[in-house]
Amino acid sequence: MTKPLSFQEVVMRLDRYWADYGCLVWQPYSEKMGAGTGNPATTLRVLGPEPWNVAYVEPSYRPADGRYAKNPNRMQLFTQYQVILKPDPGNPQELYLGSLEALGINMREHDVRFVEDNWESPALGHWGLGWEVWLDGQEISQYTYFQQCGGLATDPVSVELTYGLERIVMYLQGVRSVWDVNWDGVHTYRDIYMRSEIEQCTYNFQLADVERLGQMYNLYEAEAKAAMARGLVIPGYDYILRCSHTFNVLDARGAIGVTERASYFGRMRDLTRQVARLYVEQRKEMGFPFAKYQTSRRGAVSAPSGPAVSAPSDRPSTFLLEIGTEELPVADLTSALEQLRALVPEALAANRLGFDSVRVIGTPRRQAVLVYGLLPGQPDRTVEVQGPPAKVAFDADGSLTRAGQGFAQKQGIPVEALRVVTDGDRSYVVATKTEPGQLAGDLLAEELPKLIARLRFPKTMRWNELNVTFPRPLRWLVALLGDQVVPLVFAGVSSGRTTRGLRPLGSPDIELASADGYLAAMADRQIAVDGAERRRQIGAQAEALAASVDGRLFADPDLMDEVTNMVERPTAVLGSFEPEYLDLPHEVLITAMKKHQRYFPVIHATSGDLLPHLIGVRNGDGQNLDVVRQGYEDVLRARFADAKFFYDQDTARPLDSFLPRLDTLTFQEKLGSMLDKSKRLEKLAPIAGQALGLSQAEQAVTTRAAHLSKADLATQLVVEFTSLQGFMGCHYARLSGEDEAVATAIFEHYLPRFAGDALPETRPGLALGLANRLDSLVGLFAVGLAPSGSSDPYHLRRDALSIVQILIAHRIPLSLRSLLAEVAAIVPVPVAGQVLDEVTGFIGERLRGWLREKGLRYDVVDAVLAERADNPYGAYRAAGQLAAWVAREDWMDLLNAYGRCIRIVRDQPQQFAFQPGLDAEPATAALWDALRAARAQVTPDSDVDRLLIALWPMIPAINRFFDDVLVMHQDLALRENRLGLLQAIWGLSRGIVDLSRLEGF
Amino acid sequence: MTKPLSFQEVVMRLDRYWADYGCLVWQPYSEKMGAGTGNPATTLRVLGPEPWNVAYVEPSYRPADGRYAKNPNRMQLFTQYQVILKPDPGNPQELYLGSLEALGINMREHDVRFVEDNWESPALGHWGLGWEVWLDGQEISQYTYFQQCGGLATDPVSVELTYGLERIVMYLQGVRSVWDVNWDGVHTYRDIYMRSEIEQCTYNFQLADVERLGQMYNLYEAEAKAAMARGLVIPGYDYILRCSHTFNVLDARGAIGVTERASYFGRMRDLTRQVARLYVEQRKEMGFPFAKYQTSRRGAVSAPSGPAVSAPSDRPSTFLLEIGTEELPVADLTSALEQLRALVPEALAANRLGFDSVRVIGTPRRQAVLVYGLLPGQPDRTVEVQGPPAKVAFDADGSLTRAGQGFAQKQGIPVEALRVVTDGDRSYVVATKTEPGQLAGDLLAEELPKLIARLRFPKTMRWNELNVTFPRPLRWLVALLGDQVVPLVFAGVSSGRTTRGLRPLGSPDIELASADGYLAAMADRQIAVDGAERRRQIGAQAEALAASVDGRLFADPDLMDEVTNMVERPTAVLGSFEPEYLDLPHEVLITAMKKHQRYFPVIHATSGDLLPHLIGVRNGDGQNLDVVRQGYEDVLRARFADAKFFYDQDTARPLDSFLPRLDTLTFQEKLGSMLDKSKRLEKLAPIAGQALGLSQAEQAVTTRAAHLSKADLATQLVVEFTSLQGFMGCHYARLSGEDEAVATAIFEHYLPRFAGDALPETRPGLALGLANRLDSLVGLFAVGLAPSGSSDPYHLRRDALSIVQILIAHRIPLSLRSLLAEVAAIVPVPVAGQVLDEVTGFIGERLRGWLREKGLRYDVVDAVLAERADNPYGAYRAAGQLAAWVAREDWMDLLNAYGRCIRIVRDQPQQFAFQPGLDAEPATAALWDALRAARAQVTPDSDVDRLLIALWPMIPAINRFFDDVLVMHQDLALRENRLGLLQAIWGLSRGIVDLSRLEGF
Repeated sequence: MTKPLSFQEVVMRLDRYWADYGCLVWQPYSEKMGAGTGNPATTLRVLGPEPWNVAYVEPSYRPADGRYAKNPNRMQLFTQYQVILKPDPGNPQELYLGSLEALGINMREHDVRFVEDNWESPALGHWGLGWEVWLDGQEISQYTYFQQCGGLATDPVSVELTYGLERIVMYLQGVRSVWDVNWDGVHTYRDIYMRSEIEQCTYNFQLADVERLGQMYNLYEAEAKAAMARGLVIPGYDYILRCSHTFNVLDARGAIGVTERASYFGRMRDLTRQVARLYVEQRKEMGFPFAKYQTSRRGAVSAPSGPAVSAPSDRPSTFLLEIGTEELPVADLTSALEQLRALVPEALAANRLGFDSVRVIGTPRRQAVLVYGLLPGQPDRTVEVQGPPAKVAFDADGSLTRAGQGFAQKQGIPVEALRVVTDGDRSYVVATKTEPGQLAGDLLAEELPKLIARLRFPKTMRWNELNVTFPRPLRWLVALLGDQVVPLVFAGVSSGRTTRGLRPLGSPDIELASADGYLAAMADRQIAVDGAERRRQIGAQAEALAASVDGRLFADPDLMDEVTNMVERPTAVLGSFEPEYLDLPHEVLITAMKKHQRYFPVIHATSGDLLPHLIGVRNGDGQNLDVVRQGYEDVLRARFADAKFFYDQDTARPLDSFLPRLDTLTFQEKLGSMLDKSKRLEKLAPIAGQALGLSQAEQAVTTRAAHLSKADLATQLVVEFTSLQGFMGCHYARLSGEDEAVATAIFEHYLPRFAGDALPETRPGLALGLANRLDSLVGLFAVGLAPSGSSDPYHLRRDALSIVQILIAHRIPLSLRSLLAEVAAIVPVPVAGQVLDEVTGFIGERLRGWLREKGLRYDVVDAVLAERADNPYGAYRAAGQLAAWVAREDWMDLLNAYGRCIRIVRDQPQQFAFQPGLDAEPATAALWDALRAARAQVTPDSDVDRLLIALWPMIPAINRFFDDVLVMHQDLALRENRLGLLQAIWGLSRGIVDLSRLEGF
Repeated sequence: MTKPLSFQEVVMRLDRYWADYGCLVWQPYSEKMGAGTGNPATTLRVLGPEPWNVAYVEPSYRPADGRYAKNPNRMQLFTQYQVILKPDPGNPQELYLGSLEALGINMREHDVRFVEDNWESPALGHWGLGWEVWLDGQEISQYTYFQQCGGLATDPVSVELTYGLERIVMYLQGVRSVWDVNWDGVHTYRDIYMRSEIEQCTYNFQLADVERLGQMYNLYEAEAKAAMARGLVIPGYDYILRCSHTFNVLDARGAIGVTERASYFGRMRDLTRQVARLYVEQRKEMGFPFAKYQTSRRGAVSAPSGPAVSAPSDRPSTFLLEIGTEELPVADLTSALEQLRALVPEALAANRLGFDSVRVIGTPRRQAVLVYGLLPGQPDRTVEVQGPPAKVAFDADGSLTRAGQGFAQKQGIPVEALRVVTDGDRSYVVATKTEPGQLAGDLLAEELPKLIARLRFPKTMRWNELNVTFPRPLRWLVALLGDQVVPLVFAGVSSGRTTRGLRPLGSPDIELASADGYLAAMADRQIAVDGAERRRQIGAQAEALAASVDGRLFADPDLMDEVTNMVERPTAVLGSFEPEYLDLPHEVLITAMKKHQRYFPVIHATSGDLLPHLIGVRNGDGQNLDVVRQGYEDVLRARFADAKFFYDQDTARPLDSFLPRLDTLTFQEKLGSMLDKSKRLEKLAPIAGQALGLSQAEQAVTTRAAHLSKADLATQLVVEFTSLQGFMGCHYARLSGEDEAVATAIFEHYLPRFAGDALPETRPGLALGLANRLDSLVGLFAVGLAPSGSSDPYHLRRDALSIVQILIAHRIPLSLRSLLAEVAAIVPVPVAGQVLDEVTGFIGERLRGWLREKGLRYDVVDAVLAERADNPYGAYRAAGQLAAWVAREDWMDLLNAYGRCIRIVRDQPQQFAFQPGLDAEPATAALWDALRAARAQVTPDSDVDRLLIALWPMIPAINRFFDDVLVMHQDLALRENRLGLLQAIWGLSRGIVDLSRLEGF
């Protein structure tokens, strides 16, 4: 084995590699910044149309990430190596992988993965899509296609590669701590940086003077503005960078409250946008001088290839479309396949192309459509074309006029084929002709680009100058009809017969002879294109590995889906970790494994206890698995070390001591900090508890739990693993000596956290959860942040649904409306009555969905919700009862009878009172008696059963009444009296159910 | 020819070169700084005992150097490549030259020179000695041995190499402007930096908000102090760097007045010293962890070599000592040779070593001592050793006792050789023996290290861990006695027979067979060790080249001396510059050529006008002279472009508009700014003018000239070329429409600027010059800055001498004392009377020196100065007259007679009045008459001639008086009366001359 590269050797090799490629080698900037992106060589140069390829080192400062040098790979100062390729050269992933090869990293020996990771800095108006790059489980780079910078769309898009130098070098050197990294063959990272790391942490966390730094920020901002007002980009930007770093120090110092944060963000955003605009204006004014350096693009956009398929087959054949992409995010892959499954048959049908079946399968790098038994073309069809009037087409002799001849000629048919059609008093010439079907190949060449363009995704990006959007760049297209290429072009990519092999094998080109041979060719190259097959392989391999240590997989279908869709050729790997980490709460370990690493936890086959193992799934075959395993283990060890550090820090203090820090966590700008919310919950939770009928003891628990409910958000472990909120709060509350009931309520108030999750079992947990969610709903609706479309950043749909679920689970028939009014009085913004209607309706919609999912008929749900939408349990119970009634064979008897009453009065604008003495008809009197009997049993609070039980006996009286009595009598007094009677009958069901919503009404 | 290296390629090659050597490759720092030295990898790591080898790029910001991108190589942002080698590896120059070779610079083809350039930042407590490195006349690197940093002595010393990357790349690429530098094969420096350069200049010079930046400075300082109080080095240092850059911006902005500057300097010095101390303490506390990385030194210190010379010759032989050094500064070389010329014969004599002659010659790299005809050893000598008393050594029988035998044995002589010596009443044994002379080789081996150690230089440095001091590192020693090596060790270097050849040939080792062959061997290797020979060669070559363009050398002996002592093998090179530069004042061009480049200006052979040519002298032979010439011309062109830029800027405004800016130039902290001084001169110059008897018109000129006298100090050209002060003021005054007389006075007030310079011709120039110098003398003496020893930073000796010269030249018998009192009333500090005495005495000493230089006898000068030291012209005139008198053959008649009068009264403490009537002696009456006759002719203002003419006739009366009269009569009244008469005679010469100081008195 050769000597591992030193830190500086890695830098020098990257410089050399990227310089040889054609990058300008640049230097770290003279201001402190959080990432290489801040260097003007990125932030500014990615703007505007000019080409720019650059590579540089950037020591990056993130004060809040400091760990006093106690963490093996997290520091306030770390070193990025940054590359910008503008425009997209067409093969940036290959270039990047080439740079790893230049560092001696052989793809064949490792698990290199592109894992979705997008980048957004709303505070600065930046965003882009891309990946983290994993090397044997370790994130070593960030890879982003910049879509927007400083609020300006990037055009062309830049590719940003950001290497985490320490991570890479740790890997290359096989050391487990950054402090052991060898810098130059002599000194270690410890030698060079450890002392200053501790010092900077001490300064940032303990010493930085808040007042003075605030003043610095203001001075920087003022100078930045003055410089920009004078049109000076770089002096302005230098100060913006100082603003940003100063803010970061203040933030690490815990000095930024919610109001300040929003204000600082707004100020920084303004500055950044201003400098971005100014830069672009400046470059424009200069005539975009770098434009002259635009070199011919390396295959970024290919010209459309040759003519359509020649010599088409005359027999049904198989068609293959393979869309080759850079690694799609899991959700996008799933969505793409689903959409293709719907769109392809639809498009074939619309184009009258016959086929046997369509199969859509895919991996992160390829989405394949296989159409089996595709007929060679459309069938011919006969069409009739209306021509001129008969008397124009034929002269008096019945001979064809010039106009008639012209029509025949234009339609391309012999004159003999014209015929005259008479329609009423009109008579005209018709040409009947056979339109030959188009060839399938021609149609596909035309239709498929449109079809691909119709795919929709939540987040898409641009990459080349055509600015077509897709979730990730589309790099190749295979379109084969039988053994013929169907020529099509999408996003500048022309189709062919060449696909690409596995990444660990260097993505070799694979020529496909025909569509039929596709799956075999893929299988030959170890690629399992079908996700179901991959899932099966993973499951089988992983369970076998787990069994080898007396374990089994910790079931997690979501994780399985995700892993399946992150690989093309899965090979499961069993690793281990030090058993002492099992002293940490297992949820922490499981979260770390799943969330960060996509490892399957392993639990004991019988006890179900967590075992000190992990199962990762490599993209590739079984070669060099030891290297991969070592990598997987190392990165997990670092994660666990991190978690342990946090845990130890967190448990060194009581839970409530974290509360003040909540002031620095924003809930929502107008609704204040999490501390503000926490204080609101202390008021709201007891109110909810009262509404729920909690005991005094329960109320005490509820109040204490509300007080502590958000404290864990300020703990380090929850900052790191947000999904552990509530769980850690509960855990830390116990360790802090809180009542078990309080700890439980803290945990439960987040339940259910996802579909299928447990529900709160205790009533304090219920009350607190209700208060928490109502506060969010009312507050966020009031400030105009109700969900719209697919956007629901505050998860309000989930909150509303959870309210439904927990109230139903606890069988508490609570009408939410009055509680909402109480909430409205407490949130720190004005709440219009209409907002409460909206919230009620919003919850009602979740309730409707939930009831429907329970299998209840839509009309039953409608009927119930029309009256009881704000009372989930009430509605649920009513729907269940109503469902039973409508299932009765004699149900229509009642509905018809009751329906007769309602239909005749429901359009009556006026309300009449029935006076028994006014109507001498016995049927009227009988109905009145029946009504009185029913009324004695029913109130608006009655349930559906009681209502219908009371109504049922009225059926005969109702029917008799309508048989005997003319309601709409010409005597107005009589008529109004009878209407009054029927209105009263209708009134029985008010507030309970609206039977008119039922089918058959 | 291969493609020239790009800017980034140069960086990458330097990284590679120094990494391969063993340096840690580091990155630019995250704060703006003026030089790579500011990076903590230098400023801090050079402190303390730990080894440290590092290389890095540092983009360096010097706001005041900005030229709005209009200058071909001066910018506010430039790029340094910095290397620190700690400790000195013993061959740092060779390592450095190796790095140039790595950039493709072949020494054989260029003129690479190490030109003295020391580095000092009193504001930060840093200093070191070293060189600029010139490549074909262009400064491309700085090379410094750090002696002190942050006020702490460096031990071990670090070698700092600082490459001016832009300069080197411009050279390699053959471009004449930094803006044309190719960065990466695509972009130019213009592309990358020009716009931001202009922006930063605009910001620094025009926009930076003085108030806000002042606040920033205060905030940074406060944070730095807080961090350091907590023991945090790096956070503290980061803020110190910000302080420094902020100060630099404020300074460029013209916002730093004298008081502020002193205050800022003091504050920065305090901070820097504090951080330096803190760092060293911290490292000590950490146990100096890098100490373990100390590698074996590469020949830094060699062990003493073998035993002394064997088999010495028995005939006289030649001895050679060659001290091989890194390039000595010119003055140190001259001084070393002078000292050796004195010390060597002295040491030989002291050691009784006979020789024929000593020749001491040298070049910057070698100082050679040749002793011809050195005898092989000391002669034997006879010595007598006193032994015990005779009665102890011999018994009564006259036989030798045991004691006597012991003495003989101890002295190593036979008992027969003892003899008895009687001295008065003492009698003792004496041993007479012959002490054999020591061998010359043994003596030299012992004495020469002491001799080298006795060399004294104004500025010396340490380099290796022995901390021996020398002007530059001593790298080899040749010591040959005939053909034998004399083994000696100095500063860790052992002597041998190996010397080194010319730098352009790679300094090859040269084995010397014998001392006699030295000069021939050197000549063979093209080295002219003798400076006289080099001077002759340069003169001949240069005059021939000048003649080829109808010119001759602009005579400048100092420059000739300097150039002679900067090379080992001179080859003169004729270059040209664009004739349009001749439109600039020629003094500017000449100054640029001489001061910066050490080029000889060429003037027309007959007219004496400056020609558009230069003559440089290369160290090396005639190969590749075109390359060298091109380099010489390019660098001069850049200098001229700079000068033209300044000139154009300066002449765009009237001279008096520069006056306010003088507020930012310190004269002296307590004495205020140059503006303050300028205002004082407006008062003082007319006062001086009045004392000098100027006319009203002249006074008007004087006053206006005083007003403008210092304005040129704020012009850019004078900031660049300080030696042009006055000249440019005069020039700009003319261009600003000032009277010619005013312009002339501005120029003249600095005259004479050096020995042999012209003197002011106009009386306003004289008055202003006098006022200017008296202000300096009185002010600086008053604040305790009188010159001491060799230290005279304000050139007060020159000022005082100039006062003497100009008053004498204008024949103005001005007594300075009263003028000094007027000056004292105006300077802004209290001036004690004693200070005025000191100043008077100080000027008197210059006057004494000047008079002595004129060939006047010391006693004559003494006699005159005893009475007229504050009146230079008066003293000069008096001395001339007195000299004539003392030259008379009969002079002693007068002196004896007058002397008899004085000697008898000069110790009389009391003054008596002579009453003619009290003494009846005729001789007394005659003397009284003679005195009265003389008195009628003489006053204290009389000149010497008048005094002596008056005294001469008194001689007979005096002699008669002493013959006839007893002065010290026993009658007290009579005695006192006679003493009074003699006192009155003595009084005649008071205020004129003190004849008692004369020889023969």
